Amino acid sequence: MKAIILFGHGARDIRWREPFDRLVTLWRDQYVDVPVEVAFLEMMQPSLEEAVSSLADSGATQITVMPVFFGQGGHLRNDFPVLLNVCRKKFPQIALSATPAVGEDKTVLQAIIDFGARAL
Amino acid sequence: MKAIILFGHGARDIRWREPFDRLVTLWRDQYVDVPVEVAFLEMMQPSLEEAVSSLADSGATQITVMPVFFGQGGHLRNDFPVLLNVCRKKFPQIALSATPAVGEDKTVLQAIIDFGARAL
Repeated sequence: MKAIILFGHGARDIRWREPFDRLVTLWRDQYVDVPVEVAFLEMMQPSLEEAVSSLADSGATQITVMPVFFGQGGHLRNDFPVLLNVCRKKFPQIALSATPAVGEDKTVLQAIIDFGARAL
Repeated sequence: MKAIILFGHGARDIRWREPFDRLVTLWRDQYVDVPVEVAFLEMMQPSLEEAVSSLADSGATQITVMPVFFGQGGHLRNDFPVLLNVCRKKFPQIALSATPAVGEDKTVLQAIIDFGARAL
């Protein structure tokens, strides 16, 4: 069974996670057969490992991790691959893959441009 | 003259800013009459004040600042209004407004969902 993890940075202010909760709701409304979890690099729970564990318990066998980051800086180039490898060793029965950061996607960037244009 | 500032967090790794540079290119391709600048909260240049100054020098009189952040946490709720007010005092001739974070926009969130769905 396929599943997806929306992986964000995390922040001290709990309200920072609101868009992540909205993404989960949108996902569940549209892809009911593909379980979704959020996970955070720091300052928020669950961790990537906890999210993988939760999805594995639900029967997931292929998990795609989508970094909900704009830029691919040190966190995604250095920290994230280490976390992914820890999960791969801990859950060898799971096929774990990752997408580029969502900020690499042209349609996401265009949606941001459109939002700015509407706000002028 | 209207102008827009794409305001991001900033990061140590210079490659983190690549999506911002792509946003600027997209904007210039589509809205050639509305000057655009990036600005960063920390770790990258220019600052918000420097970007406002640059646009004011180019003749901008109405500047919209769009926070290219997902969540509205402490940076946007606390730091950003302070920076905006500093700019308003320093450039009283400029009408300076701000949009919500791009992560508040449904079409941006839907574009992220679509990106994830294509990656499964």
